[in-house]
Amino acid sequence: MNTLGHIFKITSFGESHGAAVGAVIDGCPSNLKIDFKKIQHELNRRKPNQSHLTSSRKEADEFEIMSGIFDGKTIGSPITILIKNNDAKSKDYEWLKETYRPGHADFTYEKKYGIRDHRGGGRSSARVTVGWVAAGAIAKQFLAQHNIEIVSWVNQIEQVKFEIENDFFEKNISTKEIEKLKANIEKSMVRCPDEMIANQMISLLEKIKKQGDTVGGCISTAIYGLPVGLGEPVFGKFQAELAHAILNINATKGFELGKGFESAAMKGSNYNDVFVQNKKAVSTKTNNSGGLLGGISNGMPVFFNTAFKPISTIFTEQQSITKNGKAIKIKAEGRHDPCAVPRAVPIVEAMTACVVADFLLMNKVR
Amino acid sequence: MNTLGHIFKITSFGESHGAAVGAVIDGCPSNLKIDFKKIQHELNRRKPNQSHLTSSRKEADEFEIMSGIFDGKTIGSPITILIKNNDAKSKDYEWLKETYRPGHADFTYEKKYGIRDHRGGGRSSARVTVGWVAAGAIAKQFLAQHNIEIVSWVNQIEQVKFEIENDFFEKNISTKEIEKLKANIEKSMVRCPDEMIANQMISLLEKIKKQGDTVGGCISTAIYGLPVGLGEPVFGKFQAELAHAILNINATKGFELGKGFESAAMKGSNYNDVFVQNKKAVSTKTNNSGGLLGGISNGMPVFFNTAFKPISTIFTEQQSITKNGKAIKIKAEGRHDPCAVPRAVPIVEAMTACVVADFLLMNKVR
Amino acid sequence: MNTLGHIFKITSFGESHGAAVGAVIDGCPSNLKIDFKKIQHELNRRKPNQSHLTSSRKEADEFEIMSGIFDGKTIGSPITILIKNNDAKSKDYEWLKETYRPGHADFTYEKKYGIRDHRGGGRSSARVTVGWVAAGAIAKQFLAQHNIEIVSWVNQIEQVKFEIENDFFEKNISTKEIEKLKANIEKSMVRCPDEMIANQMISLLEKIKKQGDTVGGCISTAIYGLPVGLGEPVFGKFQAELAHAILNINATKGFELGKGFESAAMKGSNYNDVFVQNKKAVSTKTNNSGGLLGGISNGMPVFFNTAFKPISTIFTEQQSITKNGKAIKIKAEGRHDPCAVPRAVPIVEAMTACVVADFLLMNKVR
Amino acid sequence: MNTLGHIFKITSFGESHGAAVGAVIDGCPSNLKIDFKKIQHELNRRKPNQSHLTSSRKEADEFEIMSGIFDGKTIGSPITILIKNNDAKSKDYEWLKETYRPGHADFTYEKKYGIRDHRGGGRSSARVTVGWVAAGAIAKQFLAQHNIEIVSWVNQIEQVKFEIENDFFEKNISTKEIEKLKANIEKSMVRCPDEMIANQMISLLEKIKKQGDTVGGCISTAIYGLPVGLGEPVFGKFQAELAHAILNINATKGFELGKGFESAAMKGSNYNDVFVQNKKAVSTKTNNSGGLLGGISNGMPVFFNTAFKPISTIFTEQQSITKNGKAIKIKAEGRHDPCAVPRAVPIVEAMTACVVADFLLMNKVR
Repeated sequence: MNTLGHIFKITSFGESHGAAVGAVIDGCPSNLKIDFKKIQHELNRRKPNQSHLTSSRKEADEFEIMSGIFDGKTIGSPITILIKNNDAKSKDYEWLKETYRPGHADFTYEKKYGIRDHRGGGRSSARVTVGWVAAGAIAKQFLAQHNIEIVSWVNQIEQVKFEIENDFFEKNISTKEIEKLKANIEKSMVRCPDEMIANQMISLLEKIKKQGDTVGGCISTAIYGLPVGLGEPVFGKFQAELAHAILNINATKGFELGKGFESAAMKGSNYNDVFVQNKKAVSTKTNNSGGLLGGISNGMPVFFNTAFKPISTIFTEQQSITKNGKAIKIKAEGRHDPCAVPRAVPIVEAMTACVVADFLLMNKVR
Repeated sequence: MNTLGHIFKITSFGESHGAAVGAVIDGCPSNLKIDFKKIQHELNRRKPNQSHLTSSRKEADEFEIMSGIFDGKTIGSPITILIKNNDAKSKDYEWLKETYRPGHADFTYEKKYGIRDHRGGGRSSARVTVGWVAAGAIAKQFLAQHNIEIVSWVNQIEQVKFEIENDFFEKNISTKEIEKLKANIEKSMVRCPDEMIANQMISLLEKIKKQGDTVGGCISTAIYGLPVGLGEPVFGKFQAELAHAILNINATKGFELGKGFESAAMKGSNYNDVFVQNKKAVSTKTNNSGGLLGGISNGMPVFFNTAFKPISTIFTEQQSITKNGKAIKIKAEGRHDPCAVPRAVPIVEAMTACVVADFLLMNKVR
Repeated sequence: MNTLGHIFKITSFGESHGAAVGAVIDGCPSNLKIDFKKIQHELNRRKPNQSHLTSSRKEADEFEIMSGIFDGKTIGSPITILIKNNDAKSKDYEWLKETYRPGHADFTYEKKYGIRDHRGGGRSSARVTVGWVAAGAIAKQFLAQHNIEIVSWVNQIEQVKFEIENDFFEKNISTKEIEKLKANIEKSMVRCPDEMIANQMISLLEKIKKQGDTVGGCISTAIYGLPVGLGEPVFGKFQAELAHAILNINATKGFELGKGFESAAMKGSNYNDVFVQNKKAVSTKTNNSGGLLGGISNGMPVFFNTAFKPISTIFTEQQSITKNGKAIKIKAEGRHDPCAVPRAVPIVEAMTACVVADFLLMNKVR
Repeated sequence: MNTLGHIFKITSFGESHGAAVGAVIDGCPSNLKIDFKKIQHELNRRKPNQSHLTSSRKEADEFEIMSGIFDGKTIGSPITILIKNNDAKSKDYEWLKETYRPGHADFTYEKKYGIRDHRGGGRSSARVTVGWVAAGAIAKQFLAQHNIEIVSWVNQIEQVKFEIENDFFEKNISTKEIEKLKANIEKSMVRCPDEMIANQMISLLEKIKKQGDTVGGCISTAIYGLPVGLGEPVFGKFQAELAHAILNINATKGFELGKGFESAAMKGSNYNDVFVQNKKAVSTKTNNSGGLLGGISNGMPVFFNTAFKPISTIFTEQQSITKNGKAIKIKAEGRHDPCAVPRAVPIVEAMTACVVADFLLMNKVR
């Protein structure tokens, strides 16, 4: 259950304070030229300590390729990527051995496995997503060959919301526009492409950090350049596989495709996307369905929205219990990250890339 | 990709107007006594033509067991359930051969497979969920042995919303209360347990039906009696597998766990569920997380919300195109179902039951 | 565990004396024209009661297609084939309820599942291979499109052995030669292509039948027309997947590829197959390796040999025990089949066809 | 396709001359105490350069645990074992870039993937089995907890054969006897427990080495202490899964269970193993079937035999072709291993251990 995908498969391994985290990617087509800088770029986007707002764990997050790539190209055998854990001050976590923190998985892991690596959350830590991001960086390079691009951005932090223009959802924007959108997203440390709203988000996070508190948020994602036909009914529908991948990301609590929960309040006569025959291809006038019909891509952008709960580690006093059921009060010390959502942007993109790569390959054998 | 689950696996087969629809259930433990009436009961709940509001396709939906059950008990080999298609007036669908209906999967199936069974939507029809409901009825009987109960109800139709008391989410209610809740749900044809709101929903649907239109809605689900420890990190998290199963149901557009999208606007200090040591077990004061920590059940009820878009078949004129790209106008005739959501209640329950049964078995080998 | 294959997947269901046996085939490419007569032809080859030598259970073995085929073509959704059990005289088996027959799976099923369908061996009966043969008949039609042909024949019954000329293993023989070989195989009721040896085998079986005994045998198989590149190292090697499929057939006890066990006694200087560059393609002078290098097809015929133990049901007195551990003497009555090997020929071909179809599809995504 | 198993799963990675080889083990139960010395012990058994007869590649084969083990115990998350490639003289292999060696996978890898790591066979090298042996060492420790022991030995090298007494197959021998058998096996560099025959084998190999040639052989394996009920019909039969794992080992060409190919020449009246009720358990008088009935263990030892072809790398001149189809003559230089079979003993045991561990876990959810 640590493997995701059917043909393009990633197997995740590693604990927060073990020797390393990483991934094995099986099923990546051979002869794919790999740009190592792009892998490092994605890892850097996910890295802690990018700004004054994020956690201060210091990790170089430099990756090593253990297998599967020869002379800069994939050879069809499993690609193993390893990222060593360096800044792993296990002693900081000694007190966690006996404590169940609210919102964390300490309690459930202990009960399920009868043992747990308590250091920094062990296997349940978001640190393990490093390996996913590395795998996603490979998937992205494969997709780029097929002109498929995935772009995610923060569209909500607590009450501050950002709504992008319909244009970004209702047609496949050009490569140039995609590059511009990406640049706007990366410009701010909160990864919201609108400067004004980004600044509001930053102010909010500074305030929240001062309060020793945390907040949740949402990430919006668009997939551009999809061919018609991706998705495998009936139990491998595009949205189902996508939601599965996304909801395995730490702290996610909701997923909606296209108009999502708004659809529930709509009428069929407003909701249905009307088909239009263009010169080359078929498109739809609107894209309420989010680019999928019957679980299969229709050539329009696929877009979806992901909800994240606030980070559980807060710096104000909370009540909890020990392993032995004793009531205690706990208060986090040290690293403080008021909001994980901006750093989750490359993770959402990575998981999406893995799912789309998988669909692209599955579609070859229909 | 027509198989769901890892140990308790269901393989779906059948098209809307083929000979039959059904499912093969592999991995169901042996020696489980099967109450056939309960299977029929679930099929009846899903059946069209239950009220003046639903579609008028006439199907007895009587099931036949082809394998896997001997002397009323499971024997450990695959259970095959077959439901013949009787009311399959293929001629009614002749016009569909050349037409792509908005919101339907006609276009994407044709492009993906180069061929499609156009009759009543073929494989993309919600008729195939009959097999899932039958499989779910077996899963429910297995879960009942472990005192796990799944209850779904309609909490929204278009703008009419219903909010159940917190009590139903924040503790494991008694068997008696569950039975009462179920009875209240089944009392009305819209499957909303609140009589007043149910009546509002019915009035709305009558109006919508007159307009030849359709509406979407939401279904709320609670799982009671879960032991601690179900869920398989990191890529088999409870919410991920659940969302995967649910979003394979026709017309679903969103899934949220616990506080879901509301979480995004919350602060950690409000969100975190505080642990409490009771006499026998550990519980949490609140249940914002929806019963899952790190993707593993913590013993509290798991609850989630599912969004459905409006049914695509509407009875007012719509623009569309033919297979050859010609613009046409279409208008549905005959059967009219203004809202699929009430009938989707047993489907949501069935898929949930299959996922939970799978987790229960997976947890035996941790 | 009742599903075989990765992309071209067959799920087997059914018990000997349940309502039906059959298979669901998932992953068969769409738009494949199906010749129903060819399916029936394969079922007829497997059918009991083909000659005075075989068991006298009377089964029409007529199949019904429940899903996945429309207008005579596959549509990309699961194909369900059902074969009803008609001649299922359950009462004949009443005594089996309490008895563990030597060589049969009565004991192991009872212990594993705590319950068993004792009638005619239930799930452990070779009757369930009917569904596999039907699935194989579909796989064969898919392979024929790619000019891949599978031919099996009996090369040993007890001590009577037949050795085909090297020519049939060391090059891809022509379609005409394949047809002639097939005709020779089907000519005799023992499915040995050499008339003289076939007659020896028949005489032997007549004698064995009179003695109330049974005998084992071997089946040789050649796969012609394979492209280079099928097989998925390292854990999906061609020979590994093939052996897996073959050794799931009832009564099989050994599998060898190419020179097989003879290889163990050879020197590298004799064993190695030397490469030769022909006009169009590369071939090897000899084919000791059986057409596979590193688990991947090299374009030469793949050939292998399968050993079958004697049928367990014999008509002389044997000692055994009851469910309660009481010693008893048993002696079969009624139907008597002295050797299952000739009827296993279409089963070996069917399983091989499913595996090769799977490899052909997997190879599209390398 | 680089993953083996269903619950206890190993994912293999690495090439002969890449950075490392290794395995990820997913599904190993938590709380298993790991003896690291036992892992190293198994790696040492597989290591080249153990005697004057084997290849002289110098590898320490020291393993590193990257994840999944905490405080000396498994924690339920994937266990990653890494073994670095040190003695990887890539330059020695420059000439291989353009050459297809007879018996090797150079040709098939090149054709399948359009690219290959030519250094020392790359992914097709037996070096990758290092990771499997490490994984098997974990599986063995899990099985030891359940009193299941696996013992393999060389029973044939070329024409020199060894036949162990029936006693080793026909009953579960005591722990003491197992330890003695193991000691006898390890005593000689050819891993044959009979001193006299071992010496014959050694003399033969010395002669073969002088000739610059290689020879094949066979390995016999017994599994002791199995409970009744392991094996998953109908497509996960014990022998089928076992053969699958074994035939993925480099150079294997045949697999037979129990009496294997001898069964084909037997009569049912001789072959059938008669049940006997003992005080505690049921056993059979003989064990021709090799401990499995209907694909499920019956409590008797499971035993099987594996055939290996001679190593392809020989030191006499051979004809072959280049990538461009030019005929050439090649002759290996440097390391010379006349027979891989003795070193394959720990590999066969490892693969067997992984399969049995998988069955043991699968049997918990029947």
